Amino acid sequence: MFKEMLENVRKRRPLVHNITNYVTVNDCANIVLACGGSPIMSDDIDEVEEITALCGALNINIGTLNSRTIPSMLAAGEKANELKRPVVLDPVGAGASRLRTDTALKLLEEVRFSVIRGNISEIKTLAAGSGTTKGVDADSADVVTKESLEQVCGFVKGFAAQTGAVIAVTGAIDIIADNNKAYCVYNGHPMMGSVTGTGCQLSAMTAAYAAANPESVLEAAAAAVCAMGICGETAYERLSPRDGNSSYRNYIIDAVYRLDGDTLESRARYRII
Amino acid sequence: MFKEMLENVRKRRPLVHNITNYVTVNDCANIVLACGGSPIMSDDIDEVEEITALCGALNINIGTLNSRTIPSMLAAGEKANELKRPVVLDPVGAGASRLRTDTALKLLEEVRFSVIRGNISEIKTLAAGSGTTKGVDADSADVVTKESLEQVCGFVKGFAAQTGAVIAVTGAIDIIADNNKAYCVYNGHPMMGSVTGTGCQLSAMTAAYAAANPESVLEAAAAAVCAMGICGETAYERLSPRDGNSSYRNYIIDAVYRLDGDTLESRARYRII
Amino acid sequence: MFKEMLENVRKRRPLVHNITNYVTVNDCANIVLACGGSPIMSDDIDEVEEITALCGALNINIGTLNSRTIPSMLAAGEKANELKRPVVLDPVGAGASRLRTDTALKLLEEVRFSVIRGNISEIKTLAAGSGTTKGVDADSADVVTKESLEQVCGFVKGFAAQTGAVIAVTGAIDIIADNNKAYCVYNGHPMMGSVTGTGCQLSAMTAAYAAANPESVLEAAAAAVCAMGICGETAYERLSPRDGNSSYRNYIIDAVYRLDGDTLESRARYRII
Repeated sequence: MFKEMLENVRKRRPLVHNITNYVTVNDCANIVLACGGSPIMSDDIDEVEEITALCGALNINIGTLNSRTIPSMLAAGEKANELKRPVVLDPVGAGASRLRTDTALKLLEEVRFSVIRGNISEIKTLAAGSGTTKGVDADSADVVTKESLEQVCGFVKGFAAQTGAVIAVTGAIDIIADNNKAYCVYNGHPMMGSVTGTGCQLSAMTAAYAAANPESVLEAAAAAVCAMGICGETAYERLSPRDGNSSYRNYIIDAVYRLDGDTLESRARYRII
Repeated sequence: MFKEMLENVRKRRPLVHNITNYVTVNDCANIVLACGGSPIMSDDIDEVEEITALCGALNINIGTLNSRTIPSMLAAGEKANELKRPVVLDPVGAGASRLRTDTALKLLEEVRFSVIRGNISEIKTLAAGSGTTKGVDADSADVVTKESLEQVCGFVKGFAAQTGAVIAVTGAIDIIADNNKAYCVYNGHPMMGSVTGTGCQLSAMTAAYAAANPESVLEAAAAAVCAMGICGETAYERLSPRDGNSSYRNYIIDAVYRLDGDTLESRARYRII
Repeated sequence: MFKEMLENVRKRRPLVHNITNYVTVNDCANIVLACGGSPIMSDDIDEVEEITALCGALNINIGTLNSRTIPSMLAAGEKANELKRPVVLDPVGAGASRLRTDTALKLLEEVRFSVIRGNISEIKTLAAGSGTTKGVDADSADVVTKESLEQVCGFVKGFAAQTGAVIAVTGAIDIIADNNKAYCVYNGHPMMGSVTGTGCQLSAMTAAYAAANPESVLEAAAAAVCAMGICGETAYERLSPRDGNSSYRNYIIDAVYRLDGDTLESRARYRII
């Protein structure tokens, strides 16, 4: 099933509109190309609706948020809703500042999202209306463990029910859920946390997967999360003793470029709760 | 002849002022350094004229266009014209939104460009005043083929005559022309399309070549296009089975860094129409 | 001693707030992660004070300066002063435009910096109130040589006394000084000049070192400069004949990721004046 999700991206080559931060934007563009999509970045209020209308999905990422682009995010989100195109939200740093929390909440109010992807602290912040995100990383008090997994799945399903979105919480164990089904994904490698923007990249790739599989957004999101995790693993296997986080970044994107449906299917490690 | 163009860049180390998008800006800076120039990025209306005055050329790229930087582009362009420094235009996404099309047309009205480099859909949009650019990629209906080559060369020469600029249309076959001479370049590799910003990088490098060869802008632009294409080929030859588009990006810039005049001369594949 | 500085970064994993340019921001984030810190980039006036309050240090970099972010730099700087967190200034291009010079001077007036890191032309500009910086590179008339070293150290110590900051002047020989002690560092490789943003990266890493060693800012800054220089050397040793400046960029960050305290201690080459 995940295989089909991946192959649809390669076959349909969806255009993905990204309104995203300037830190990881280049990697987001390259990973969308790597998985088979075509990225366009645009954030000016005078063109975002037209650009969204050209695209198969919209990815909104609030890293390096600024007042100029908030209205662009809202306008593009509303246009995508009107045209029934999937919209992904990456609430980077929600909980770390009032501006990010409030903007994320406002986006939730005005835009129907297909997928919301963040770390556990960001997602808890959205659910609670405030939070304690440590910069752009999850608060250690929030981290998902084997023991807390079932309980967290319940919370995630509840938040999915409340928002109507697929919720993707990424971390050591990833949880991707709608209101009644949760994929718990065990792929990935801890070193991914020492590359800036692996979360942003995953959100952009998720938008490409959702664009190519609009009827199966939960499975598309789970496939994208597994794909990223597997690529984190195969990229890690490739590291030489002198390689560090910069080469690792390149190898992860390279792995996404080379990933095929059979490998995705056979290396995906998850259970459904 | 191309050899001399390249060697002049390495000898003169021109400063290049870039007003460019935030997606590919780092790669643009590194490719200008790789070819022998020195990049400076600056887009604030309060400094662009001073920065242009320091530089040997100006490169204006309308990717991630926003209302804040349009007046900066116009002011810098006019200053460069006044000082008779080459100006390059990269009309990224012209035809994909009204804002980009209108801004590109306004720039054409108010600034004399030395070189305009884009894909065929972007260039057709500038010539016609509207277009159907597919995001930041050429519309498949526009693609230059062996059959349409002579006709497209005629169009490109006509647009060069109309604008007074050298026009560089890049794609599977590249066409670089002034009003009476067209270089048709066969270098390059299709995989370059899966790296974000190879076009932006080429425009930035073209500005460095024009700065170092202001008396021979047509040949300078053709040399830059051949150089980029050759580097796309040699970088491709270097790929290992696990390398993908991210390593390919690095290898292309690496190849530009290593390219010498003799290799450029001997590997350039073009004919003149 | 440098060993301890490095190990404190790895142990304390300081959050570093960066208000920085969009050219080299991704490399800055990755080098902060590579050395053991955690970066957050944020420049909107509505959140910078909150973000600074979360972080162990603030890094202000004026590359691609624009009018929107100048008030953010001032507000964040004042907040960091209030909370007694180290603040680093990278006056990119001071001397190349009035806007950059004036902004750097205004920052110096309103914010107490712990470290100011720039090339010799940028630092001379700050001291004199105007300058002749060649784009973002030092003016060749300013370059520090064996002959001028003692005299330049005197100037740097004087500027340190005047500002109360540790001054780090980087170039072929680096000088890191407070008002009575100067480290002259001989590590590094000339090819680092062909990678965009090695200076910006060093400033971001210096902020991480200062955050983890707030009681020993001079030694922390000297350790960061030595670390960067050593990594420039080991990355250079790793280059294959086809590698150029793009792979070199990756290898430098990789080397920072792999650097340990013993290697830093044993490879650091400096004398104290």
